[in-house]
This record gives sequence, C-alpha cells and structure tokens, in this order.
Amino acid sequence: MAKAKKTPRPKAQTPKGFRDHLGEEVVRRQAMLGRIAEIYRLHGFEPLETSAVETVEALGKFLPDLDRPNEGVFAWEEDEGWLALRYDLTAPLARVAAQHRADLPSPYRRYAMGLVWRNEKPGPGRYRQFYQCDADTVGSALPAADAEAAVMCADALEAAGIARGDYVVRLNDRRVLNGVMDAAQVPEGARGAVLRAVDKLDRLGPEGVRALLGEGRVDESGDRTEGAGLAPDQAAHVLAFTGAGGDDAGATLAALRGLVAGPEGVDALERVFAAVDAMGGAGRVRIDPSVVRGLGYYTGPVMEAELTFEVVDEKGRPRQFGSVAGGGRYDDLVKRFTGQEVPAVGVSIGVDRLLAALEARGAAPAPAGPVVVTVMDRDRVADSMALAADLRAAGIRAEVYLGNPRNFGNQLKYADQRNAPAAIIEGSDERARGVVQVKDLALGKAISETATLEEWKERPAQREVPREGLVAAVREIVER
Amino acid sequence: MAKAKKTPRPKAQTPKGFRDHLGEEVVRRQAMLGRIAEIYRLHGFEPLETSAVETVEALGKFLPDLDRPNEGVFAWEEDEGWLALRYDLTAPLARVAAQHRADLPSPYRRYAMGLVWRNEKPGPGRYRQFYQCDADTVGSALPAADAEAAVMCADALEAAGIARGDYVVRLNDRRVLNGVMDAAQVPEGARGAVLRAVDKLDRLGPEGVRALLGEGRVDESGDRTEGAGLAPDQAAHVLAFTGAGGDDAGATLAALRGLVAGPEGVDALERVFAAVDAMGGAGRVRIDPSVVRGLGYYTGPVMEAELTFEVVDEKGRPRQFGSVAGGGRYDDLVKRFTGQEVPAVGVSIGVDRLLAALEARGAAPAPAGPVVVTVMDRDRVADSMALAADLRAAGIRAEVYLGNPRNFGNQLKYADQRNAPAAIIEGSDERARGVVQVKDLALGKAISETATLEEWKERPAQREVPREGLVAAVREIVER
Repeated sequence: MAKAKKTPRPKAQTPKGFRDHLGEEVVRRQAMLGRIAEIYRLHGFEPLETSAVETVEALGKFLPDLDRPNEGVFAWEEDEGWLALRYDLTAPLARVAAQHRADLPSPYRRYAMGLVWRNEKPGPGRYRQFYQCDADTVGSALPAADAEAAVMCADALEAAGIARGDYVVRLNDRRVLNGVMDAAQVPEGARGAVLRAVDKLDRLGPEGVRALLGEGRVDESGDRTEGAGLAPDQAAHVLAFTGAGGDDAGATLAALRGLVAGPEGVDALERVFAAVDAMGGAGRVRIDPSVVRGLGYYTGPVMEAELTFEVVDEKGRPRQFGSVAGGGRYDDLVKRFTGQEVPAVGVSIGVDRLLAALEARGAAPAPAGPVVVTVMDRDRVADSMALAADLRAAGIRAEVYLGNPRNFGNQLKYADQRNAPAAIIEGSDERARGVVQVKDLALGKAISETATLEEWKERPAQREVPREGLVAAVREIVER
Repeated sequence: MAKAKKTPRPKAQTPKGFRDHLGEEVVRRQAMLGRIAEIYRLHGFEPLETSAVETVEALGKFLPDLDRPNEGVFAWEEDEGWLALRYDLTAPLARVAAQHRADLPSPYRRYAMGLVWRNEKPGPGRYRQFYQCDADTVGSALPAADAEAAVMCADALEAAGIARGDYVVRLNDRRVLNGVMDAAQVPEGARGAVLRAVDKLDRLGPEGVRALLGEGRVDESGDRTEGAGLAPDQAAHVLAFTGAGGDDAGATLAALRGLVAGPEGVDALERVFAAVDAMGGAGRVRIDPSVVRGLGYYTGPVMEAELTFEVVDEKGRPRQFGSVAGGGRYDDLVKRFTGQEVPAVGVSIGVDRLLAALEARGAAPAPAGPVVVTVMDRDRVADSMALAADLRAAGIRAEVYLGNPRNFGNQLKYADQRNAPAAIIEGSDERARGVVQVKDLALGKAISETATLEEWKERPAQREVPREGLVAAVREIVER
C-alpha cells in the first residue's frame, strides 16, 4: 500500500485475452457441467482434477528453448526449473496415468472439467483462458471404448439440453483415409496436406478441397495456399471417399470398402459402429468419412459432434453452430513417461460453444433475482434483516438493501437492477400496525408496459399484508 | 515427440507443492461447495469467476522488483508486462469492483469459489495451489453487512454438514482492542506486537501471551521471541480484555466498556451483534475479544469460525480442528484503483480444512462404485455394452470391463478395485438360456468376513436371473 502512493494508480483491467464471468452465466455453466458430469459418472467415469501448474518437462511438446519456452504456453522459471500452466487436460492425464499407474484401475476411465491456458494472440471470441470438459479411457484398445466415447458424448449433449435430432456425432477412422490414400497411391510426403485439405471440407466445400488436393487455392483475400499436388484422378478418389457417408451405416461401410487398398480401417470402423449400435447410439452417431480432425496425435477412430440446427445471428443471418465436441483414439501419450505404449481414447466438449448454443437456442430467460427488503431508517436495519431471514427460512432468496437508506428511490432502482421479483417495505407506520407492503415488481413492470387502466386498478402491483402473511404473499409472487 | 528422443524420459510428477485430486474427493468437494453456494445465493449473493491470471499491477501488493516479482506469487513477464496467478480472491474482487463499477449493483454482494496460488515453500499439508471460498459485500458501511457475513458463515457451515453446536463464529472489532490499548496507554510502536501476541492466545495460552506482551518468550526449541515490552499492569489490562468473553453478549459488552478508553469500538460491536440477533444468529455467533485476526488490512469487525468438537488423529490423540473460516471488514482495497474509499466486508471458508473436518467427523463411507459388466469373449463385448446400457437407462451407474478379457480373475479384481456393488456375467451358456449371473460383491465381502457356513448357503452371493430381470435384481443390490 505504501508503494502505491509512489506509483500512478493501477489500471483496473484483466490482462489482454482474459476475462471475468459474472452472475447467472456462472450458474448456467456450473449447472451444465454438473449435468454432463452425471452422464460421465453414470458410465463409470471418475473425476480427476490435476494441478493447474505442471513442469514444462512433464507437459511435453513445449520444451524450453534458449531463453524461455513460449510456444503457446504460459511458462516461467523457478529455482526447481521451468513451470507452465496446462494448455489442455490430456497432457496432464498422460502424466497422471504414468505417475499413479500402480494405484489406478486399468482401464482407467476419468473425466475432467477445468480451466486451461493458451499463450496465443487473443482475438474476438478467442481467449487465453477457457474451460475444457473431457472424458477419456486409458488402457483399453477395444473398439467398444471408442464407441463408448461417441455415445456418451451424445448422451452428454442431451443432458446439457440439446434435443435428440438437433445434433449428430460423426465418426470416422484415420486408417480409412490412410487406406484410401494407399489405393490412390498418394505419396507419403503429400499425406499431411491431404489431411489438412479434407479437414476444411465444411468451410470450403468439395471444389475448394479439390483445389487444395491438386494445384492449390487462392482465397478471397488473394492469399495462395499450396496444394497437395495430387493428379485429378487421385483427388477424385479422395473426394469420393469424403462423400461416401449416408444415413445407412451398412451402405457407407460397403462404399468405403470399394475405395481402400486394405480392409484394416473399414473393419475397425465397423467394429466400433457395432458397439455404438449395441449401446443404442445408432442414428445419433453416424459414420462420416469427411471427419478427419486436425490434431496430429490421433491414431485410429476420430469423432466430432455437430449441432445441426440453425440460429440467427445479431445481424439476422442464419448460421450453423457447427462442431461442439471432438475426440478420438491416441495411443502414444503415456509412452513418453514410461516407454510402454498405452492405448487411450477420449472426447472433449467445447464448454463455451455449447453454452452459447444453448443460449442461442432460446434457453430459459434470466431467472428472477432475490426479493429485496428495503430499509426506511438506519436504526431499523435489524428489523429488515429479520424480515429477510423469515423469507430465507422459507427457501426464498432475499436480501436487505445495505446501501445508504436515505434515498428511497435508489432502493427501488437497486431492486430493479437486481431483477427482484418483489420489494418489501415496512415503515414505522406499517410496523405500528403490524403490516408490511409487498411491491410486485414483475407485475408492476408488466402493467406499466401493457395493461389498461382497468387492469391496473384490478391488479394493484403493491398490496398491504399482515406481517405474519409476508411469506405466503411473497411466495405467491415468486412462484407465479 | 521428436525432441523427447534426444532427452531422457520426463518425470511423471507434479511440481513440488502441487497435487492432483482423484475420484470421490472431487465429488465430495464439489457437493460441499454446491451446498455452500446455495446458502450464499439464498442471501442474494451472485457468483463471480475472475481470471486466474492478473497483471501484477492490478494484483497490487507484489510489485516487480529489479529482476522479477517473487514475493509469494507466481509471476512471469510477457510482452505486455508482468502477469501473475492470483494469490487470493479478494484482490481480484477489488479490481472487478473498480473495473465494472458502472454496471454492478451497489452494494455488490458476490461469492467466489476457485483456485489460488502461492509461491511459498511447500511443507506437510502446505500446498502452493488450493481452493478458496469467499463471500463479500462491497459498498456497504452498515453493521448489518458485518452481521450478515457472520450469520451466513454459520449457515454455510451447517449446509456443509457441521451440526449446530459443533461450531461457533467468534466476533470482535479491531477498534475494541485499539480502545483497550488506548486505556492501557500502549505506545503506538508496540501495538503491532500486541496484536500478534493476542493472535497466539489459542496456541500459547494466557501465560504465553503474557510473556509476549512483556519481556518476550523462549519456546521449547530454545528460540526467543521478542516481547512487546509492556509493563505488568498494561499486560494485565490487555489480558483482561481477551478474557472478557462469555455466553452472555450483554455481559461481555458491559465488561468491555470498563476496559476501553472510548466507546467507539464497543458501540460498533453492539450494533453488529444486534443485527446478528435479528437474523437468528445469537448463540451461533458469539462476541469473543480474543479474536484479532493477523491480517493487517482489517479495519473494524473481525470474525473467525471454529469447530468445537474433538477428533482423534492417526496416533489416537484427541485434537481440535480449530479455525475453518475467517473474515472481517476492510475498507481500503478498491481505493487503490479509483481513489475513492469503498467499504467492504467478507468471509472466507477454508475449503480443504472444512472437508478434512467433515471426513474426520465420520462422514458417509465411500459410496459404491459402478456395477461392472464382465466380458467373456472379445467378440461379445457389444453384448456386454448392451447390458450396461440397460442398467444406465434405469439410472444405475454401470461400466463394461474394457481391458483384455482373457483373464477372468483380472475382471473380478478390477470390479473389486472399482468398489463395484455387483458384477454381471453372461457367458455363452447363459446367453443361450436367456439368463445372466449377478454377483453380489458387497454381500460376498461381508460373507467372507463374518458369515457362518449356514448363512453363506442361505444367502448366496451369486444368483442367476432371467435377462429381463437384470435391472430389478441389480437395483435390489445397489439400493440395499
């Protein structure tokens, strides 16, 4: 505090790319995560909360360069070495699976919900701190584990409030694309570019992808993206693959068999889908060869959950929400610690996107705030506290106005700002007569907006009730 | 990954002083925080989640020294300046109160539950990342706001599972101690040492504090602590003050009036207690002059919640849990941003200590894990998945063993490790006959420990039921 006098006043601001969450948004996110957690637990998954801070060594991928590690993570040096904030929930899971392997059940099913941090350039809607919500199974190579991830993701979306039919979980296997590239004789060096091209199908459409598979593509801004250099017939082969999906899983699998060099990938996809079907997931989970997922570490099945309804944006244009979850099989993450290959599969739900989708879908309007008990006189605050305590004892959210009671108008403005359903007034006159005034603020608002004079007279927005009738009168309002 | 080959394998460990939380502990903490949040909301408090990362400038108190700021915080330099992990939830609240002051209601009641980080030397039970759970009212100078903090803290402890009578919220006012020191003519320079001495009353007892108020004290290890240098009658005056508490608030206040130079502090305490009483908090909240709270920033009322029951530690010795929450009034925190003094009061619950207390109090035993459906044959996993899906559709936690199904003994060991109440077995013979085996693992355990041979025969731990009777049979076990 002494130092503050010497320096100018600090700016009251979060760092760039960081933000605060206030009020009902926090309640809604917590409620959504709670409902998803119930689905995960129902499937036998156990919660895991790892340390937010990891050694840079354990975090992997990002290793300290000469001066400091700054490729995408927030990192700093302590006496014991470089520490960093976790950038996802999968790298810490790999560390935990290695560190606690003697004590954990195997296979180990775990879910995790928590903050992650990325040291990236912030932009509109792009933050440097955000929530992830993951479920993974470590130690199972069975296709049923992949199927479980896909179906559980579907169940989680429904629990969060997305209706069946408003989403689809699209399922594919990386090895199918490999088999297609084998059949089309795509050289090893071009395969990364093919993968990236196919991953852009949603955004660019088939012709855009065809360009990226071949010579390359110039976008609207004039920037040129290098192509994978495939011959037209090779590109056509790959495009036929991405378009092979359909409602009928059997037909899709048969079409894929005609496009691949070896059966490995399609056989694997068929086994996963059989388990999906057994779990009641067919229809909600669909085979879709166009899903490849950008991340390099996936080794087999990949999946992506997409919302299929349209919403209208602030400019009145319809738009799709697109992907809200994704995942797949990755078999190498634990190996870096133990040397042993441990098969794993997982799915991650985009918390902010899903929450935004639920709101755009027209979730419930903002719930009412607490009842506000006004204060008529500084010496009588305790009486107001007693009134509020009575309301709370009946389970009704209630608070006393604890600002300066002098200006009564400020108290009603405050009640308005708190979205209070009712305000309670007990002046000395009321107190002497053993009554209180109950002001129905919601009704008052409705009346002032729409009601006729007659309605206004018939349904007064303020009424006097005996002190002992307070709870009943307020309950009538808040339960209306 | 490529780099990992060049370097030795990373250690699978959290950094020193950090830890992971696994399984039911996470569920219990979430449930406890959820119940506390309900109490806060009932009182009209709104949730706030601030960014975990702050500018060092906004965080205050810790300013960058020559090279880097390292007094108690984790901090690092980015292009835009020094950033740091928050070390409590109060400093970010002050920043939010200043940043959003145009939009927030005033007074602003908010609660916050989240991680904080301290760059301190870790020790047994001392971690560098932990949860805090705070409720504060910013913008009210009324004694009712202090009373609300104290009574709400009591309600929160009860909601968490501490029975009435097993805790007490002790209440005092810093200004009472000031008045006592005025009366005893304690010089300004000695007052800090007096405060620290009184704060140790719990640990050292009256004679230890008397020594610290006077010449000083040599502890068991031989270390000497400098005293405040008071004369014996001055020390006696201060000690009389700390001992003035009792069951009767009126008597305590009267005794305090006889010990202070001016009435300011005692008057303030009396007003707070009147509001406590009006809220139904008397008895649970008690005036206790020995509470001073170490933190320098408190300016008026201070409070501390203590658990009053004894628990037995791992060596069989009875011990008290002591303080699980504390708080008070601080009026200067927002001023550093805006120049304006904003009155504020808050209370903070020690999440880990409270959770430990609930467990020591003999909270519920570990809940049963999910039902485990075994797999008899790799090609029949889908059948097991369908059985598990049926159980889940009935709301029963269930999972399929997804390790290598070859060794059946491993599957039962796994079920044991998962604390499964039951295991389901459907071999090809059972499948042909349309039945499943339900193994009652809890009963099996009980039988193997205590039952006679007769009981064992009468209540077999495994029984065969028709496929369509699976859910009913399992429900009988999990609901027992």
